[in-house]
Amino acid sequence: MSVTAPQGFDAAGIAAGIKRSGALDLAVIVNRGPLQAGAAVFTSNRAKANPILWSEQVVKDGTVAAIVLNSGGANCFTGPEGFQVTHRTAEAAASALGISAGDVLVCSTGLIGDQLDGEVLEEGVLSAANRLAGDEAAGADAARAIMTTDTKPKTVEVVVDGWRIGGMAKGAGMLAPGLATMLVVLTTDAVVDSAGLRAALRRATRATFDRLDSDGCMSTNDQVTLLASGASGVAPDPETFVEALTTACRDLALQLQGDAEGASHDIAIEVRGAVTEDDAVEVGRSIARNNLFKAAIFGNDPNWGRVLAAIGTTSAPFDPYLVDVTMNGVRVCHAGRPDRPREDVDLTPRATSVIVELHAGEASATIWTNDLTHDYVHENSAYSS
Amino acid sequence: MSVTAPQGFDAAGIAAGIKRSGALDLAVIVNRGPLQAGAAVFTSNRAKANPILWSEQVVKDGTVAAIVLNSGGANCFTGPEGFQVTHRTAEAAASALGISAGDVLVCSTGLIGDQLDGEVLEEGVLSAANRLAGDEAAGADAARAIMTTDTKPKTVEVVVDGWRIGGMAKGAGMLAPGLATMLVVLTTDAVVDSAGLRAALRRATRATFDRLDSDGCMSTNDQVTLLASGASGVAPDPETFVEALTTACRDLALQLQGDAEGASHDIAIEVRGAVTEDDAVEVGRSIARNNLFKAAIFGNDPNWGRVLAAIGTTSAPFDPYLVDVTMNGVRVCHAGRPDRPREDVDLTPRATSVIVELHAGEASATIWTNDLTHDYVHENSAYSS
Repeated sequence: MSVTAPQGFDAAGIAAGIKRSGALDLAVIVNRGPLQAGAAVFTSNRAKANPILWSEQVVKDGTVAAIVLNSGGANCFTGPEGFQVTHRTAEAAASALGISAGDVLVCSTGLIGDQLDGEVLEEGVLSAANRLAGDEAAGADAARAIMTTDTKPKTVEVVVDGWRIGGMAKGAGMLAPGLATMLVVLTTDAVVDSAGLRAALRRATRATFDRLDSDGCMSTNDQVTLLASGASGVAPDPETFVEALTTACRDLALQLQGDAEGASHDIAIEVRGAVTEDDAVEVGRSIARNNLFKAAIFGNDPNWGRVLAAIGTTSAPFDPYLVDVTMNGVRVCHAGRPDRPREDVDLTPRATSVIVELHAGEASATIWTNDLTHDYVHENSAYSS
Repeated sequence: MSVTAPQGFDAAGIAAGIKRSGALDLAVIVNRGPLQAGAAVFTSNRAKANPILWSEQVVKDGTVAAIVLNSGGANCFTGPEGFQVTHRTAEAAASALGISAGDVLVCSTGLIGDQLDGEVLEEGVLSAANRLAGDEAAGADAARAIMTTDTKPKTVEVVVDGWRIGGMAKGAGMLAPGLATMLVVLTTDAVVDSAGLRAALRRATRATFDRLDSDGCMSTNDQVTLLASGASGVAPDPETFVEALTTACRDLALQLQGDAEGASHDIAIEVRGAVTEDDAVEVGRSIARNNLFKAAIFGNDPNWGRVLAAIGTTSAPFDPYLVDVTMNGVRVCHAGRPDRPREDVDLTPRATSVIVELHAGEASATIWTNDLTHDYVHENSAYSS
């Protein structure tokens, strides 16, 4: 499991002293090659954290030798000093690993607006570099070191003929589109160049992380990184690679949904019968972001009127008097009016299905979200205190 | 106060038996003239309730003789039967008052997806018609009869030289743009024709109800209606009329904000230094809809990072490293980095001020919203049960 599952990757996760709790807070992952190809997708938030600004430049040439990730501070809105801390982190890794700082990605997660201590990070990187290993325990430590309010680490492994994809993710709040706010590192020992990685990552994230919208809030620090070592010597068919990568991304996305802050329901909103896939996504997202709908699901209330009210705010073509809504298998709304009784819907399970049939076309899409709960409000009102 | 403050209007508010609780649930307001001019703005939700579909047609010719409003059911997504109930309501009022059904507006509020009982409504309208009066008590009853989860009635009176504007409003949840979800009736004895009413209402709502965004959810039943009797004999200057109307609308909007479901903070988000007013509104709305920001305010946490993260999701021109954020008088962020300590901000008062200075231009706008609280989640998860 985790990022050390494929050949060619070493990892470490340590307690560098960034978190006051003494928990693991710094991860380093090194690509031992022979390939050192990398690609990444970043938050579409225009307010970008310093590590995003750094990593966007590093990944441009397609060569990535290592990635450093810290929890305990986002290093966002910390000015030029904050950028220097990111730069110093990359330099520390470069010096410890005998590589170029220009090939070191940096990711940070935690509270916005607090300065990270550059010396603590530098010492942490040096210490982590001494503990790098390619075994399962090292990958597990790395996955733990990037956790913030996550209650458990998220890892994945996909095995195909002769090559693998491994991965880890963090993200329990601010899961939103453009991509779901989080840090993800995926590794593979398949032989794929950076252009191939980039194309595959775009396609895989579009259908997975981009459709996860836990609370509608978009982070300043999102980054999904894909690294290839080529150590298996196998160059997979591009379609096969995209499929395996999509499988890995979907698995991690659903783990993120299942651990979303304070949530009591994992809601899959499937929109069918849209004119275009973009319409289906817009409709699904509008429902996923409707606080009244989300609070109703928390209360096990199949309030389908709120579903239709949310659809009505979109620009997707539809006729309100053709829409069907099915919740956990019970069609509560048919042709825009009441169908089977609300009481027949059992919303007590955590897994919740909402199917909206627009009867406007042939396209469909599924958006994953969570309910709006007392615990969500509590966790997010107490985060920085 | 209320809709009977201007001359020429009679009102009644009764318990028709729509609400199981036996509370007041039906209001009738009649315009005795000599003018019977009317204008209205409606929800921009494309999923419109039956009374909206009806009222949109009625108001087109600019003549409105009466309006019937009920709480206890939204009559939305109730199919052709639901439309018949609305029609029957208007016919009942027409018959009781000796006017045309085509001059009777209808508004409904309450749960979506439940059929209203046409007979109960018809009897209620006849009973209310027998109790119409032009005094303050009648106006107060009408304001009470439209309440749903409101904890108190909302009324307003503005007195200008020789003429008045009166008004009532309901709306405690689903306050959102396009307009803040609610029912509002404004009356005036000024001499203004329907074209003048329409133009003035558009301008007044744009700067008031349209800037109220309590929870980002847009209703299917919103309607703001303005009726003129001309009974004062005074034809005011159009600008004076718009100003007085805007004053009345702002007063009611702030009453709605102050009674928003479960809220513990009334937040005014003032965006300054935007390139255009539309940009300022977009930025303010994005902050107002950010659940993480709203939960932080509930927790009295001046988490300005969430303000900047929300700005970053807009298309408004701005440089993250020029932005200042001031919360309750304390500038916590200057030029995109930490300024005065968070601890200096006192967020315990209900009235909360957030000022965002973009330093991108000269335009500004204020958006009013509320925090995201345990009580909001509770009230909205229990609404239909």
